[in-house]
Amino acid sequence: MNIRENIRPGGRSARVQASVHKAVRDLLSTMDRGDVTIPLIAAEAGVTPSTIYRRWGDLQELLADVAVEHLRPDAPPKDTGSARTDLELWAEQYADEMASGPGRAMIRDVLSSTGTETRNAGKCCGYTREQLQAIAARADDRGEAFPDVETVIDHVVAPIMFRILFDETPAAAGQVRLLVEKVLPER
Amino acid sequence: MNIRENIRPGGRSARVQASVHKAVRDLLSTMDRGDVTIPLIAAEAGVTPSTIYRRWGDLQELLADVAVEHLRPDAPPKDTGSARTDLELWAEQYADEMASGPGRAMIRDVLSSTGTETRNAGKCCGYTREQLQAIAARADDRGEAFPDVETVIDHVVAPIMFRILFDETPAAAGQVRLLVEKVLPER
Repeated sequence: MNIRENIRPGGRSARVQASVHKAVRDLLSTMDRGDVTIPLIAAEAGVTPSTIYRRWGDLQELLADVAVEHLRPDAPPKDTGSARTDLELWAEQYADEMASGPGRAMIRDVLSSTGTETRNAGKCCGYTREQLQAIAARADDRGEAFPDVETVIDHVVAPIMFRILFDETPAAAGQVRLLVEKVLPER
Repeated sequence: MNIRENIRPGGRSARVQASVHKAVRDLLSTMDRGDVTIPLIAAEAGVTPSTIYRRWGDLQELLADVAVEHLRPDAPPKDTGSARTDLELWAEQYADEMASGPGRAMIRDVLSSTGTETRNAGKCCGYTREQLQAIAARADDRGEAFPDVETVIDHVVAPIMFRILFDETPAAAGQVRLLVEKVLPER
């Protein structure tokens, strides 16, 4: 299923999607995720359940779609005047957001959509890559050194995410700065 | 719930657990995960559904428990005669196993057990840490240099797992060796 790509902005399909996404977010903010069902979402969004089944297939796919949408950054990374501080600030925010309760729930939704997990998870990785590319492009404009974006993903983003998913204690700000220092050593 | 820790080996409780775990593995090998239910597992294991509900709470917890058990290594990492080749071989096997279809399904089960996700996922991370500690101890016996185990987790294990979960193409053997080279540079 190629959902968002086939949607004409402002068209009926886009309005249905916006309304269903909003219904999911509203319900998740007031009730347990385990109690949210497609009929409830449909009632809240003012559409029929079959509209939802037809477009998303099942609840897990819909939750993953909403989570991916929420994880899409709404602005470029803050320009702090230097590549090092840009990357440090971005990585600390990424670690904080992903380690938070809502962040963990969204990661779980994205990763547990069966079958298409790579597509949803790949989109999240794509957003991360775009943010890092924006920091790299600014570094280039300023004439600053900056590592390859894939190196930053392997050695800054991946350790942060691995500790959130598999370890008891997520990375603290000090550890995030050490990861940045490793890919962008101070002169 | 503290399941395994409270079980006397060979006791009734251990036999029930072994039988339920085996039933889950047998069912998963012949049918779609989405079609596996607690009543089916109970029938296959020769226990009542309420035995399963009482001990594991829900299907997701049981699947996560089975996955964690399966991810527990059954032998120390192979001794290849040097720390570098020990680590390379271990990391390549880890990448292969986790990127496989069954590996991905097990990671998904471990990560999607709500509420206790950290406990199940933390056990997996614990197994990985033990394997790396065994390689580090052998390196020490041989008088070889070896990085801190947490450094190996951050810069070898985490990138492998991140690419499996979030990227389209998992790390190839060549990339795994590059990650090892980074934490254990050749003289």
